[in-house]
Amino acid sequence: MLKKYFKDVENKSATLTDGTPVKDVYVRWLIDENDGAINFAMRRFEIKPGAKVPLHGHVQDHEIYILTGNGVFYNDSGQEEIVNPGDVVYIPPNEKHGINNSGSENLVFLCLIPYLKE
Amino acid sequence: MLKKYFKDVENKSATLTDGTPVKDVYVRWLIDENDGAINFAMRRFEIKPGAKVPLHGHVQDHEIYILTGNGVFYNDSGQEEIVNPGDVVYIPPNEKHGINNSGSENLVFLCLIPYLKE
Repeated sequence: MLKKYFKDVENKSATLTDGTPVKDVYVRWLIDENDGAINFAMRRFEIKPGAKVPLHGHVQDHEIYILTGNGVFYNDSGQEEIVNPGDVVYIPPNEKHGINNSGSENLVFLCLIPYLKE
Repeated sequence: MLKKYFKDVENKSATLTDGTPVKDVYVRWLIDENDGAINFAMRRFEIKPGAKVPLHGHVQDHEIYILTGNGVFYNDSGQEEIVNPGDVVYIPPNEKHGINNSGSENLVFLCLIPYLKE
């Protein structure tokens, strides 16, 4: 068993899965392969007010839980979802998605992603 | 993309992985196979004050994020961890673990578990 406090994990500038940096978006990898987690990873994102994660896609699905703040999740099929604390978002594999912080405080959420195996 | 609010998901009496009921412990399966999630599931647990999840084990690992309340996670090696909001716990595969709500309010946490494949 391994316990840590989220603030003790480094808050890094976020990048897309292809390495593209995303301005004013930060990520803590709370639980990952370095902790022995082999199936999926837990990340905690902070998106500053006005910042955006551009539309992008990848084979990994996402399971998301909104902790604080308000924002919009959208995909390339015209679906838009306003999110608030306590909302859950599931993004299936390969669905292109983007996120805007439309509020006045940080949009903070957990976003879990699988380590895929052949 | 699928969005829901956690309160719109049924809060069920919890059971251990072998089906044993656990008194005063409730679980919402926020994202699971019914949503198309094939890699892992997101559950939100509520443990009432004084309630306990007894020591038990299984092959699935757990990734846990404490939302509210206070409690103790322990294993069968004598390790005990006091948890508070913002704490993260990783429980490896097959490590026996138990949880006590040692506080005066509900102990609420997200607990994610893989769907294992051969």
